[in-house]
Parts: sequence; C-alpha cells; structure tokens
Amino acid sequence: MLTEFDLIKRYFAQHSVTDPRIALGIGDDCALLNPTPGMQLAISSDMLVAGRHFFADADPVLLGHKCLAVNLSDLAAMGATPLAFTLALALPEANPAWLQGFSGGLLTLADRHGCSLIGGDTTKGPLTISITIFGELPPGTALRRDAALVGDDIWVSGTLGDARLALAGYRDEVALDAAAHGQAALRMHQPTPRIALGLALRGIAHAALDISDGLSGDLGHILERSGVGASLLLDALPAGPVLQRQTQDLRRRFTLAGGDDYELCFTAPVARRDAVLAAAATAGTPVTRIGRIEAAPGLRLLDAQGQAVALTISSFDHFSTP
Amino acid sequence: MLTEFDLIKRYFAQHSVTDPRIALGIGDDCALLNPTPGMQLAISSDMLVAGRHFFADADPVLLGHKCLAVNLSDLAAMGATPLAFTLALALPEANPAWLQGFSGGLLTLADRHGCSLIGGDTTKGPLTISITIFGELPPGTALRRDAALVGDDIWVSGTLGDARLALAGYRDEVALDAAAHGQAALRMHQPTPRIALGLALRGIAHAALDISDGLSGDLGHILERSGVGASLLLDALPAGPVLQRQTQDLRRRFTLAGGDDYELCFTAPVARRDAVLAAAATAGTPVTRIGRIEAAPGLRLLDAQGQAVALTISSFDHFSTP
Repeated sequence: MLTEFDLIKRYFAQHSVTDPRIALGIGDDCALLNPTPGMQLAISSDMLVAGRHFFADADPVLLGHKCLAVNLSDLAAMGATPLAFTLALALPEANPAWLQGFSGGLLTLADRHGCSLIGGDTTKGPLTISITIFGELPPGTALRRDAALVGDDIWVSGTLGDARLALAGYRDEVALDAAAHGQAALRMHQPTPRIALGLALRGIAHAALDISDGLSGDLGHILERSGVGASLLLDALPAGPVLQRQTQDLRRRFTLAGGDDYELCFTAPVARRDAVLAAAATAGTPVTRIGRIEAAPGLRLLDAQGQAVALTISSFDHFSTP
Repeated sequence: MLTEFDLIKRYFAQHSVTDPRIALGIGDDCALLNPTPGMQLAISSDMLVAGRHFFADADPVLLGHKCLAVNLSDLAAMGATPLAFTLALALPEANPAWLQGFSGGLLTLADRHGCSLIGGDTTKGPLTISITIFGELPPGTALRRDAALVGDDIWVSGTLGDARLALAGYRDEVALDAAAHGQAALRMHQPTPRIALGLALRGIAHAALDISDGLSGDLGHILERSGVGASLLLDALPAGPVLQRQTQDLRRRFTLAGGDDYELCFTAPVARRDAVLAAAATAGTPVTRIGRIEAAPGLRLLDAQGQAVALTISSFDHFSTP
C-alpha cells in the first residue's frame, strides 16, 4: 500500500523546480515564493468534483490537463503570467495507474506554461481536485471585470459551444456521429488556456473574463460589476467547427450559454480594433467582435438584421441546477 | 433557492477587506495581492473531507474555525505572518444556517489574525473544504524541516493528546465522563494556531513543523529531511489536562502519536534555551523540552531513567488506514 508520502514523492515531487522565484517547493509546512519585485500577484482557486465537473471514469491524463487548464484560464482572463500552483487532492484510493496519468497530464501542461507545482495536500475521500494558481502582472494592468465602458466593443476568443455539444452527445440529447463527437469532446476534455492572448491584451482591453459557465451568464458578471448593459449579435457568435454543422437553434443556444468553453470574453475601445487584432495575431488566437457595451442595463440579443431575439437561456449555476 | 453568487455574496463577500496589501478581493477571475517589498511569501494548502477529518454533522461554527486554524498552523510552523487565504468549498446543498455558522467561525478567526478571505470557489458535491493560505516572512528566516542540527534540543508547544483522547471518547475506546470529554473535545474542535510563537522563534529555532498526524510521525519528517536522528523523553511529553488523568500507557500513546494536536515541534541549539523560553513567554505559549537531535538515524524513546522503551506506534496516514 502506498502511503501518502510515497504518493506525493512518486508522482508529484519528482517534478523538479528550477524557477528562481521558488525558494522552497513541496515537502515543508509551506512553500516559499520570492515574488518578482514590483509585480502584483494574481491568485485563483477552483474545485472540481467527480460526477459534477467530470465523469468519475474520465481519462486521468485529460483530467490532469483540464484541472490545470481551467486555472490557467483564470490567469489568462486577468492578463497574468503563470508562476506556480498548489494541488489539493481527495482520492477514493491510491491507484498508481490513475496517479501516473493524472500527474502526467497535469505536469505536462504546467511545464508548457512555466508553472511549478509547489505544494498541496492529498487525502482519502470522494474524488475532488482543488487547485490554487499564482501568476504575476505589473500593478494596474489587470483585466478586471469592472472595467467595461459604454461604447466598448465586446470580443470573444476562439470558438464557443463545442464542449457543450459534446456533453449533449454523451447525454444523447443530440445525435452525433463518432468522428464529430470525438472532435467536440476534445474541446470538452482539453481546453486551451488563452494565456498568450491575455498577456497581449494588457493595455488594450478594458474588461475581461474567461467563459466557464456560458457566455451570456459570464458576460453578465462584467455588465453587473461595470454597471453597464450590452447588445450581442447572436449570429456573430463563433460556433465551434462541429457545432457549425448543427441547427441554428442549437448553435445559438450552445454558443450563448454552453459552458466549459474557457475562451476569453473581453471589451475594448472601438478605436483599438486594430490593436486587438494585432494582439490576437501575436498570440495566434483568433478573436471575433460580437457586440457592444451600452448604458442601458441588461443583455439584448440581436439577429443579423439587428432585430431583437427572444431567447430565454439561464446560465449554469452549481446550486440551482440538480 | 440560493444561487452560487448569492451564496458567496451573502456569507463570504460581506467580509470587508481593508488590508492595503490586497488590491482586489472576491469577485473577479483572480484576486490581486501586492506583496510587501522584500518579503518572501509562504503558501500552504489543506483539504478536509467530511467523515474523514471531521464528522459530517459537526457544529459549523467550530468547523469553520478548525479549517482555517489548521492552515494558520502551517504558517506558524514556518514563522510566517498571516496575510490572506482562498476557500474552495464543495457542499451537498446550500443550507443557510450551516453557511452562516461556518462563515462566522471561519471569518472570526481570520479577523483575529488579520488574514483576509480573498477568493475561492463553491460547488455542489460531497462536503469538502480546501483552503490555501498565504503568509509573509523575511527571506532566510523560515523555520524549515531540513534545518535540525545534531545536538539541538527538541521542544514542543502546549500539550499533546487531548484531541486524540476526545476521538477515543467518541469511538467508545475510552470511558470518559461528560465534563472530561467536553474539555478534551474542545482541543479537537478548536485548535489554537501558534502564530505568535512561530514569529517569536524566528532567528532562534532551527527546524520546526506543526503536529497534525502525531508527534512521532511528524518529527520523523524533520529527522528525514535534516538527515539526523533523535531521542525523545517519553514521560516528558506534555499531556493535555484530561489525558494527564489517564493511564501511563494511554498518555504515552496519545502524546506520542495522537494526531490533531496542532502544536509546534521545533529544534533549537542548547545555547539558546533561555531565548526559547523568552520567546515562549512573549508569545504566551508554554513550551517543553522533550528530547535531543542526534547523529544516529531513527527515533529512540527513553523513559524517565533514560532506558529505551519499545513502543510500536504508527503515525496516521490517509491512505494506509481504512
């Protein structure tokens, strides 16, 4: 039987940390960081629960990737450079094959972003994964939710809805052939954190967040915190390649309120459209202009002719959904 | 029905943050910290699972206290000043009475230590509480596990074993009258993080850690990481006031390997005994000298006559115990 310390050593502590900002990594009561002088620290925590955020039998490599990806996505949404993270893990059992896969998926993505695992906790319990991530950015440059201004364009990165379409496929809500489902499922299981885009948008974008619970609900947080409203061009929302081949109704619903997209939604002045496109080109991440920030509160949906569309869609909420 | 955002607002975000080091608290993709220039950041994560670390029907006020106390204890063991923390919470349901109690217990202790709640996550799931805590300390002053030197005294703060005795009472392993059990249970449910002592020991102690899984096992981490061994004076171990009235065998077992003590175990040079006692007096926390760091590997237990005692006790391990 593996002890807790064997576990940590074998699968996680082998990850050698060479970042000079990390004075002490795994193995003591605390990790020690030397923050870069003059930089602000960005911090985010997420908790993923088996059966709610992922299937209990999910591929551990993909799961390891996704757990860190959703946290990196929070740093991206703030415009922060990844620095380090801690991992708290409750496991029903110490399964070596699962741990090997999970730590592999997790640490591969961590290495790609120079983000070191510096500590955490492991315990027996229902499979639950909690990551706290740290990034750095110059003071005053964070892309905050409360910074949208009336007149700003609203932009979104990449494409939306394929992750939700994959979930619909698993649930047999939509009939998909195996190839299409497999392609959509990649978006669900392997989201790409938009770190490079977040960095490139510093000094250009006003407000930003990452879309985890669906565009309309998440954009609502920007509107609420900025004290503004918005119009969205419903048919300008960039659907994922698999969702593009579905009905207009499904496209609209899953791009607008799909969840699990992990794209950035951000606002920027009209005068900075070229700068936004240049930032997107630098980051290698396509962006699409999807609407406008307005003074009137609320979110209005417009069709291609500029006519209001009545579409009742509620965002995902962890306590109001069964 | 409370939504996730209502929940966060009502019970946690009301906690106003006035610390100038906190540039942005709850409500965005990340919190933003301005680390004190020249200070190192100490970071620790813990995960507590219902039915494993606490009873599912535990008093939520005490539970809120304990969850943060065990994290503050990690900062104390490093000699760090508390700064802030994040909370990730999986809940089976959004129960207002439970949330009111839990957030009250948590935030009261947080306020006492000037430690602000700056972010986190809430989700539906089996009751699981994961906290990541941040503290500050001058570079080079951390009380690390790998810093014990041959010849050092070994010290422990406060008393040991009453928390384990309370557990034995709940399990009917030991017969305790209600008053005694109630007194011991306070130690189990309301551990006192030894923050002031940790700070006072900077520059005096060599190695330190906090005792969560039992003295012998936790001291073993200092020995292993420092490449040393130790002798412990078994009958010098300070038993809690309730445990003091039990048999010698129980006293020995529960002080040596009780778990849930959250006292500090530390080593310091013999020449600094007066400084250790002065630090303890400053912090208002009693300390007891319990043994000596030696070159020979392993942990030796001695009775009052200096004779070796054979006592086979295994430390608590989350994966090797049922």
